[in-house]
Amino acid sequence: MKKYNTSPLSGMQELLPTEQAVFDQLKQNISDVYHHYGFLNIETPFIERADILLAKAGGDTEKQIYMVSKTAESADSADQALRFDHTVPLARYVVEHNNDLAFPFQVTQINRNFRGERAQRGRFREFYQCDCDIIGREKLPIAYDAKVIACIYDALATFNLPKMLIRISNRKVLAGFLATIGAEAQSGEIANIIDHAEKVPQEKSEAALRELDLSEETVAKIVAFMFTKGDYDTVEAKLTEILSGKLEDVREGLDELKQVFSILSAKPEMTDKVTIDLMIIRGLDYYTGTVFETFLQDYREIGSISSGGRYENLASNFTEQKFPGVGGSIGLTRLFFVLNEYKLLAKEQAESVPLDYCILPMSENEIPFAMTVAATLRAENFKVDIDFDTRKLGARLNRAAKLARFAIVIGDQESASREVEIKNLTTGEKSKRQF
Amino acid sequence: MKKYNTSPLSGMQELLPTEQAVFDQLKQNISDVYHHYGFLNIETPFIERADILLAKAGGDTEKQIYMVSKTAESADSADQALRFDHTVPLARYVVEHNNDLAFPFQVTQINRNFRGERAQRGRFREFYQCDCDIIGREKLPIAYDAKVIACIYDALATFNLPKMLIRISNRKVLAGFLATIGAEAQSGEIANIIDHAEKVPQEKSEAALRELDLSEETVAKIVAFMFTKGDYDTVEAKLTEILSGKLEDVREGLDELKQVFSILSAKPEMTDKVTIDLMIIRGLDYYTGTVFETFLQDYREIGSISSGGRYENLASNFTEQKFPGVGGSIGLTRLFFVLNEYKLLAKEQAESVPLDYCILPMSENEIPFAMTVAATLRAENFKVDIDFDTRKLGARLNRAAKLARFAIVIGDQESASREVEIKNLTTGEKSKRQF
Repeated sequence: MKKYNTSPLSGMQELLPTEQAVFDQLKQNISDVYHHYGFLNIETPFIERADILLAKAGGDTEKQIYMVSKTAESADSADQALRFDHTVPLARYVVEHNNDLAFPFQVTQINRNFRGERAQRGRFREFYQCDCDIIGREKLPIAYDAKVIACIYDALATFNLPKMLIRISNRKVLAGFLATIGAEAQSGEIANIIDHAEKVPQEKSEAALRELDLSEETVAKIVAFMFTKGDYDTVEAKLTEILSGKLEDVREGLDELKQVFSILSAKPEMTDKVTIDLMIIRGLDYYTGTVFETFLQDYREIGSISSGGRYENLASNFTEQKFPGVGGSIGLTRLFFVLNEYKLLAKEQAESVPLDYCILPMSENEIPFAMTVAATLRAENFKVDIDFDTRKLGARLNRAAKLARFAIVIGDQESASREVEIKNLTTGEKSKRQF
Repeated sequence: MKKYNTSPLSGMQELLPTEQAVFDQLKQNISDVYHHYGFLNIETPFIERADILLAKAGGDTEKQIYMVSKTAESADSADQALRFDHTVPLARYVVEHNNDLAFPFQVTQINRNFRGERAQRGRFREFYQCDCDIIGREKLPIAYDAKVIACIYDALATFNLPKMLIRISNRKVLAGFLATIGAEAQSGEIANIIDHAEKVPQEKSEAALRELDLSEETVAKIVAFMFTKGDYDTVEAKLTEILSGKLEDVREGLDELKQVFSILSAKPEMTDKVTIDLMIIRGLDYYTGTVFETFLQDYREIGSISSGGRYENLASNFTEQKFPGVGGSIGLTRLFFVLNEYKLLAKEQAESVPLDYCILPMSENEIPFAMTVAATLRAENFKVDIDFDTRKLGARLNRAAKLARFAIVIGDQESASREVEIKNLTTGEKSKRQF
């Protein structure tokens, strides 16, 4: 008989321990790869000054922000809020600590952020984002864009995912293209149409373009542009054709794209997993050059499972110093939810037994030897439970089977001989070991 | 020229990457030991229903609680708050999911909690607590109390701390003692005086006791009680003396204390690190049996660095089912701050170089081979940065020396021969390796 509603609040992902173990393993995999790539971990507070968070937020984000106040209200707790992403706090961090950081500053943040979105299946109000960013001072070579994408790829490749595809583009190519065809004035609307093109029939995108007061020829060029994809040479040839050879305005973007693509496709395991695709825009105004999204080829309906890009100036709201950056993010809470829905975590789940050993002393007298056995196994890096329960052995072995791969029952004989029988709880196989 | 105040809010611990690496290592050590002991990780939301959090909070905690609301206020975001500890959310979690949990449920939570405390040096408003708890259904054998304490000890023993001392007591001993000497009526005040006795001169504690309208003899017995410590036999003998052999009312508490102490002192590395000490009370009403605190023997002024105890019914606010538990917590944010102040993290800091290798390709042409070298080293579990910077080599090597233990410079010769020189950035030693 409950006295309170003990369910978590709507929009919160609360997992059982066995699910949590899978989630934690995926998070650890991502973190390991980020660290192997040389990214340094930082943690910023969850609570920030509201004016810092709202400096650029605007629109939906501003509506979704959680404000924070103390019950016993005092001046210093006014105007505080929960961060909604890692990027704004990172910008603040870089400005605040820039004298103590070695640039390029390769940084990772893996933690929860908060958005009071409308409650909806698969949308979460607290959600893990696994970000990696590289921040330069004044300038940052384009090869770092490839590095971030390679790192995100390697992180996702630790999951047992079916065929991944990383689609990359460059905002400068789009901007140069629209300048060349004389459609700069409508660039915001056009970018928006391209950004949504994948989710609607082609005719609908074309109709939307026609509403922008563009000539049929221009519409045709934009449609040809947004379906341009492939390796670098293919894309350059196609653009040359669409623009009748006038590549001046897209040259800088193409050169960046070429460099990023050639570094990535030179990585043997990525060769057939990376493509240039000019339909990739990334909604945010924020990005200025490279943009990328990651998909599962056989599950396109899932949408992008990670994304990122280049931003010319991370901290422009907070300082006049220039900190160009490139970063990527894996939205792990949503990804975990979706992969579960599509039963794509079966292998991880099958492998996820929480503990290695469960040791069951038959009486209090066997506790000292049980602790010796446990200490030895823990020193060998195993996860070891000692069950002190006083129920019948059958019930205790049932609990052990839910939690561990092996069980060791310790009676007076085992304590005396220091030899135990190790039972494999999956196969039933038994073996002996001396402690 | 900043446009905003970019410092973190008062009461927040924000670390530089090198400090963060030490912090993360300590957190990982604790987590590893908890997992080796068979505790399963869970994560509960940061935001909970305010009524759940306030069900028992009261007093200071209620004043310190952070309320949360969306800017675009709607019914469902009213009455939400940030959790102030792991225990209340754990109680909710156990009630909510009890049908899916295997009891005894051994659970760890390592994450931040929130308290809007008065800003004060060394007091934090967001702080990591590393909790381990064992929750039974209906009953929970006393040996689990020893297990929690042993686990906390082993977790702290992974730090390079000077002499630790775990002081244990049992609330039932205090309660039985006060009943025997006829001072039950003042038990709250007496517990409070004992709880603070360590921080004031003995005369002050005695004066405080005299104000409670107790006989001189009773005051003398209480003073003798609170200075009782040592191994089990010593403590039992002393109590027998103080109570003139009338041990009936303290028997249950003494038996529990005996069992916990004997299990712990049988652990070879703990033998001289654990003592019974009846001055240990733990302020919270919450505890019902075993209580413990951990100190550094040579730094008693730091106070307790971890603590915990037995609570008869975790979830009494939320259900009529009985879930007895025992748990402990390491307050890592404060501990990290204090250990830094006392320069007790020197060894960890010296060992904490963020990266293993920094690879410096001399031009874009060397990037493919640099990536091959990096991939090989990453597969060997090393943390490897590739520096694509275009500054002079000297500046790039300076950055490498701040971040990594080894540097590898890659020019056209290295790319051709696939042999590189590995420079130890600490000793200057050089060695060759083929990739």
